[in-house]
This record gives sequence, structure tokens and C-alpha cells, in this order.
Amino acid sequence: MAVSNIRYGAGVTKEVGMDLQNMGAKNVCLMTDKNLSRLPPVQIVMDSLSKNGISFQVYDDVRVEPTDGSFMDAIEFAKKGAFDAYVAVGGGSTMDTCKAANLYASSPHSEFLDYVNAPIGKGKPVTVPLKPLIAVPTTSGTGSETTGVAIFDYEHLKVKTGIASRAIKPTLGLVDPLHTLHMPCQVVANSGFDVLCHALESYTAIPYNMRSPCPSNPIQRPAYQGSNPISDIWAVHALQIVAKYLKRAVRNPDDLEARSKMHLASAFAGIGFGNAGVHLCHGMSYPISGLVKTYKAKEYNVDHPLVPHGLSVVVTSPAVFTFTAQMFPERHLETAEILGANIRTARIQDAGPVLADALRKFLFDLNVDDGLAALGYSKDDIPSLVKGTLPQERVTKLAPRAQSEEDLSALFEASMKLY
Amino acid sequence: MAVSNIRYGAGVTKEVGMDLQNMGAKNVCLMTDKNLSRLPPVQIVMDSLSKNGISFQVYDDVRVEPTDGSFMDAIEFAKKGAFDAYVAVGGGSTMDTCKAANLYASSPHSEFLDYVNAPIGKGKPVTVPLKPLIAVPTTSGTGSETTGVAIFDYEHLKVKTGIASRAIKPTLGLVDPLHTLHMPCQVVANSGFDVLCHALESYTAIPYNMRSPCPSNPIQRPAYQGSNPISDIWAVHALQIVAKYLKRAVRNPDDLEARSKMHLASAFAGIGFGNAGVHLCHGMSYPISGLVKTYKAKEYNVDHPLVPHGLSVVVTSPAVFTFTAQMFPERHLETAEILGANIRTARIQDAGPVLADALRKFLFDLNVDDGLAALGYSKDDIPSLVKGTLPQERVTKLAPRAQSEEDLSALFEASMKLY
Ligand SMILES: NC(=O)c1ccc[n+]([C@@H]2O[C@H](COP(=O)([O-])OP(=O)(O)OC[C@H]3O[C@@H](n4cnc5c(N)ncnc54)[C@H](O)[C@@H]3O)[C@@H](O)[C@H]2O)c1
Ligand SMILES: NC(=O)c1ccc[n+]([C@@H]2O[C@H](COP(=O)([O-])OP(=O)(O)OC[C@H]3O[C@@H](n4cnc5c(N)ncnc54)[C@H](O)[C@@H]3O)[C@@H](O)[C@H]2O)c1
Ligand SMILES: [Fe+2]
Ligand SMILES: [Fe+2]
Repeated sequence: MAVSNIRYGAGVTKEVGMDLQNMGAKNVCLMTDKNLSRLPPVQIVMDSLSKNGISFQVYDDVRVEPTDGSFMDAIEFAKKGAFDAYVAVGGGSTMDTCKAANLYASSPHSEFLDYVNAPIGKGKPVTVPLKPLIAVPTTSGTGSETTGVAIFDYEHLKVKTGIASRAIKPTLGLVDPLHTLHMPCQVVANSGFDVLCHALESYTAIPYNMRSPCPSNPIQRPAYQGSNPISDIWAVHALQIVAKYLKRAVRNPDDLEARSKMHLASAFAGIGFGNAGVHLCHGMSYPISGLVKTYKAKEYNVDHPLVPHGLSVVVTSPAVFTFTAQMFPERHLETAEILGANIRTARIQDAGPVLADALRKFLFDLNVDDGLAALGYSKDDIPSLVKGTLPQERVTKLAPRAQSEEDLSALFEASMKLY
Repeated sequence: MAVSNIRYGAGVTKEVGMDLQNMGAKNVCLMTDKNLSRLPPVQIVMDSLSKNGISFQVYDDVRVEPTDGSFMDAIEFAKKGAFDAYVAVGGGSTMDTCKAANLYASSPHSEFLDYVNAPIGKGKPVTVPLKPLIAVPTTSGTGSETTGVAIFDYEHLKVKTGIASRAIKPTLGLVDPLHTLHMPCQVVANSGFDVLCHALESYTAIPYNMRSPCPSNPIQRPAYQGSNPISDIWAVHALQIVAKYLKRAVRNPDDLEARSKMHLASAFAGIGFGNAGVHLCHGMSYPISGLVKTYKAKEYNVDHPLVPHGLSVVVTSPAVFTFTAQMFPERHLETAEILGANIRTARIQDAGPVLADALRKFLFDLNVDDGLAALGYSKDDIPSLVKGTLPQERVTKLAPRAQSEEDLSALFEASMKLY
């Protein structure tokens, strides 16, 4: 169980120049995306760097929901710049891109697939030293400032995968709630659903002492260890915050309290799932976003079709938790109650449907599109969706219940419509 | 909010040899005390080291509640051994001694006072690299496996002080509940009171955003930052476990569930207070144990007078929280409720007495000695106790309410008798 290094508070970003100076940085790479590059969070970081006399170059070509191609572009930039530190200002897309840039620029002789998760890549352990990376999240979702994970869309296979290593965990996360005031409501909602699923999945993941095979040497322990008494705490707290504040944060851009709480919840859930892992909603989400056809998320201001990560994850959640509940029904009921369900008269064997109903109500209240069908998928796509899920066994094997291909098909089918 | 790396589970200690091998260690220092050196936790570590072909030397002269003299002895041993890694198997006394040994052996030209907290020492920042240190706690108290703190009795001044630096935080804590089965009941009780106070003090410490002066550069932030949303979570969880399991753990040596939970609570509270800090109970405890006359704690099996740390801390808690409650009365009431008080009819202005009563009842149920008088102190000692508290301002300034010398006198006086 590793806890991450984060500093939380309104205004902490102003200190980033001093932090970098303390780390001895002289030539910094500032990564962000084209939307953020025009907004205050990036301006504040640039001012702080300048004020502390630190040279920097800006890379603002981060792709929203990155691909191997967009990662490569950032990596090239990083290699050329020979930077001695990195700052990522943005959502998961930016932080993940920056982690990859730091990794491959520090390991210039590696092939791209070397560090990509097996079976898609080679999943080699990282042994090279990386440069310090400060992550400044501007969404309330991925918790990427706390995790050793970088996710991208592998275009060639049309499926999302990632790189997972403690080595790419940011040196420091600056969680500054003021940055969330600029977030479009749809980004608040979708990144909030990511928090919701990180919490629900890590809390219902297979317990750490039931995972198999048990590695014979502790160095082979996976980053994702299964649910455990420490990740449980983070998951439950994050879920409580989501239940209490997400709707307010979506509906009112000026509700600093609600947006601040969600910003913290995203880091909490990140610490939780970064140790425990996620399972089926995430495993199934990767083909849902990878195979996107024409769906374009509102308010994302990007020029390519996109099912935002949080939406791709939450859309299967009612089906997934109906399926998994038979294993740890008490935990499923407990989370349903946190989300507002009345469980006093619920029977233990109804834990799945009770949680699923609570989730559907939550999504309906926030005007979420009605299932995979609304995202452009039909029954004919199910075989490809299943095929895209199978290589995600790094996460799917953390589900409390094993899944056959038929089970996966049924889960996608049950997620076509939500309401 | 910073990193603590812990691995939790029955039997995790068996892996310590592999962990050290993974770190490249070839010549390890195993530190422990004379009681533990005859018990299974040390045996298990030695077996694991041997099995993995790692050479090691045992130092079992750790003093229970260490002094500058006993630290120096361990430091000499460490310097001579030129070790490349350390394993500490024991309670706070052992872990703290091992941290100091590692620090000064890695910084051979430093004077002892260089790294000791100001104003007693020079409080210099640690810039030398240390060797890896694996901490294996056998008490459920200090949380020292998660903190960058090492406490000792500075005999010359008859007062406890310490070394505080992120650099001495253990590389890894192996929290193995099986070790707690060997603990004498009095050690369970007293180390449990330490957890209780870590939780209560860090939860009621001045909030991180009200601390002053605000350092102009983040590198000057103290390790103890004041209460914050993350430490709050650890504190509340630890307190809930103490309320539910400490009595069971004390009363029944075979209650593995209760003892396991307390073992985890001690790490939780350690992560909490390691970031937020402690305040008056701890600040006032240092002279209480430093000035000990003839009191000898039961079941500690040591040849010197001793007020165990947990006892020295908890004995002033009813007085302290009566004094501090006016600042954050809701938090005081909330913790009283966790400890079993009925607060439904309590008025907010009674928060202090309500919490104090809950504490008194808790201590009475566990047969704790009746106040400072029972530990051998009289009114005549109060001036020296106050004098010993004044240099502890590193912690006392984290109290939610400022204290004059008269206030401190009154707190010691009110702690002469508890019941
Ligand atoms: N590394 C991890 O641990 C992890 C975990 C979950 C998801 N992810 C990945 O993270 C990505 C999603 O990241 P995300 O949900 O944080 O969103 P994002 O980074 O993709 O950004 C979403 C949109 O919001 C805009 N935006 C972000 N912050 C803004 C702000 N404060 N003001 C105005 N506009 C803002 C961006 O420009 C973009 O258009 C996906 O690729 C996903 O797979 C990573
Ligand atoms: N570093 C920190 O963060 C921190 C925090 C709080 C307290 N402390 C310090 O830690 C010290 C107290 O440590 P402690 O309370 O853990 O106790 P300890 O290490 O002083 O041990 C207390 C007694 O219990 C025995 N013992 C310990 N574990 C045992 C086991 N499993 N079976 C049988 N006997 C066992 C020891 O031999 C000793 O006699 C004090 O010096 C205190 O100031 C440090
Ligand atoms: Fe996610
Ligand atoms: Fe303590």
C-alpha cells in the first residue's frame, strides 16, 4: 500500500516554480492540451515558473483521450527537449501523456511496446530512473496525479490499454480546487463518473488475500492488489463525496464547495484504486471508447469522435454490479445505501438490482445518455466489444466473479439501454 | 500528505529476506530489544534472511524508551558494521533507534545534535542519502513504521525530544498482525493509548490552512502540517477501531481479530499524525516520561524506571481536551461519540467535559493508574513539568488553542487525579 504525495489547497499551484527549483530543475517541460493552454491553470503555472527563473517549453498538443500516436508525438518532444523535470496541467489525458513522455525520454532505447501492459505490450518492469513530474489535475476524475498508470488508445487494435508501473507515479500532485471552476459541466459529470466507478470497483474488487496466483517474490506483486483495508477507506470516502456533491458540482459551476470536494474525492479514489485496482466497468470501457464511431461528447471541444472515459465506464455499471453482487452482496448493498437507496427492507439476494437501480437513478438525474445504444452501438457490435475486453484481463481478473465470453456479451447487451 | 509504504497481512514478515534481496542488500543490520530477541518475530526475520542468503548482524541492545546514550550506542554499532540495509523488529523504541542508527551512520561527520529538533538541537535538514530500512512493528502503538520521526530521552535535560525528517521514514513497513499475539496486555493497553491520542490530537490539531507562519517556500513546510482532509480520514478510522477493539485486544491475548485491527489502527493513526501532527498530550508527555522517578510500568520487563509513552500521553488527555474543546467543539463531540458517549442531549459548550468523561470512563475500564499522582508526581513537580513542555513547541503550537505557562500548570494540576 503506497500512499501518494499530494498537496491540497486553493492556490497551491502558485508554488510549483519553487517546488521545481527545490528539485533542482532548470529546463522544464510543461504539458497541457489546447483548451487548457488558454485557461488560468496553465497561466498560473507559467507565471510561477517565470517568477522563479525556470526555463520551460510548452507542449500543448496533448490529445483528449490520447492514442499511441499522440503519445509518440509527446515523447518525441520530450526527447528533443532533454528536460530535467515535467509539469502536467490538465485532466487524465494530459497527466497520462506526460507520464509516458517522461518514461520514454528517460529510456530512449526502449521500443514503445516494451512498457505497455501485456498481453498487448511486453509489460517490462521499469528500471531506468525518471525525471521528477508534478501533476496538476484540472478535472475531478482520473486521480492520475496519484497513480502509476497511463492510458491510451492503441489505434491499430482499436482498443484502450496502458502502461502501469510505480515508476511513473507523479513525484507530487498539486490538487488545487480553484482549477475545477473552469471545467465544463459535462466534463464535471463524466470525470465524476470515473471517480464513482473507481470507488465502486476498487471496493468490490477481489480481496487482496484471495487473489491468485500469490507471487512467490514480493517484487512480482502487481500494482493492483485487490481490495484491502486501506483502499477500502479511500473508496468509501470517495463514494460518500460523490453521493453528496457530484450533482451539485455538475449543476452549478460556481459551487466551489462541491467542486472542491469532488477534486479531493478524485485523488482519494485514485489512491484507493491505484492500490486495489478496478475491474469490469473499466475493462469493458476500453473497447467502448476504442471502437467509437461518430459519437461526439458535448462540451469536450475536440475534433474527433469521443466517448469520454467516465461515460464509457459508468454506462455498464448497472449491469456489472448486478452480475458481481452475488459475491460480496453486503458491500454492494452498503454502496447502494451510500448512493441513496433505502436498503432497510432489501434482501441480501437483491443486492445487485438494488445497487443497479441506485446507479440508474443517479445517472438519470444527471441526464446521462440512455446506454450503449445512445453512444452509437448496436447488438452487432457486441462481438467486437467482447473481443476488445478479453485482453484487459489485468483488470477484469480483479472482478469478484469470473466472466466467460457469454457473460461479457450479456453484460454489453444489458447495457444497451439503461432506463 | 506524503507517502508511507506498508504491506499488511498475517505472515508478510516471512518475505523480508526477499524484499532485502530485491533492494540489493548483502550486509544487513537487524535491530531489536532483549525481550523480542527471544520471540518469534525476530526468529522469523532471521530465518527469512538466512534462507535468502543474506548476511546480517543482530543488535539487540535497543533500550525501551531510548535515550541519547542508547541511540549513540546503536549508531556506533551501525557505523562499524557498514551495513547496506536495516531491519527493525520491535515497537517504537526499536524502530526509532534503527532510524537514528541509519541516519548517523549515513552522515558520519554530523554531530548528534545536528539533526535533533530545534530548539534543543539544530534541526538541520537531512541531505545525505540513507540506506533502506524495513520496519516490522510488534506493538500496536507508535505507527513509527509510517513516520519520519525518532523519539528519545535527552538525559542531560531530562526531557524527551526527537528527530523529524521525511528522510528517516522507513522504506517499507511490514505490518504483520501475528506479531501482536506476543504482546503483554499492559503493552497492548499503553501502546493502544498512543494510537488513541495520535488520532484525537491529529483530528483536533489546528487546521492546515490556519497554521502560521505560512512558509514562503514549500520546502520549509514542517512535517506536521495541521489537520487536513486526508489526515482526518486516517484519524477517524483509527479512533473507530480503538473504540471497538482496544478493550478486547487488552483483555484477551488470543483475540487475533481485535489485535489485528489495533495493529492496523496504529499504522492508520501514524499516517494521520505523521502528516497532521500531534499537540498537547504529546508535548506534555515528554517531561512526564523524561522526569520519571521510581515508577516502573508493569509487564515491561526493563531494569529502569519507566512511564511508558502511551501512558504518559493519555494521562493528560481529559484535561487537554477540556481545554481545547472551545476551538472545535463539533470535532470534540464527534470523537466523544465515537468513544461511546451519548451526545444527543449534549450542548456544544459542553463538548470538552463530554469528551473528557468519555476518556475517563475508557481509562477506568482499562484500570489505568489514577493520574500523575499515581505515576509518582506531586504538585511540587509542576514547575519542572511545565519547563519541560516549553521546548516542545514544535508540537504544542499545533494545539487549536494557544497556551500560557499558567495554562500548562493548570493542565498538569488537573491531571494529578483522573477519577
Ligand atoms: N492514469 C489513470 O490513473 C487514469 C484513470 C482513469 C482514466 N484515465 C484516462 O484519463 C483520460 C480522461 O481524463 P479526464 O477525464 O481527466 O479528462 P481529459 O483530460 O480527457 O479532459 C476532458 C476535457 O476537459 C477539458 N478540461 C479539463 N480540465 C478543464 C478545466 N479545468 N477547464 C476547462 N476545460 C477542462 C479538456 O481540455 C478536455 O477537453 C482518459 O484517457 C482515461 O482513460 C487515466
Ligand atoms: N516514531 C514515532 O512516530 C513515535 C510515535 C510515538 C511514540 N514513539 C516512541 O516509541 C516508544 C514506545 O514504543 P512502543 O510503545 O511501541 O513500545 P516499546 O518499543 O517501547 O516496547 C514496549 C515493551 O514491549 C515489549 N514488546 C514489544 N513488542 C512485543 C511483542 N510483540 N511481544 C512481547 N513484547 C513486546 C518491548 O520489549 C518492551 O518491553 C517511545 O520511545 C515513544 O516515545 C515514537
Ligand atoms: Fe477511470
Ligand atoms: Fe505517540
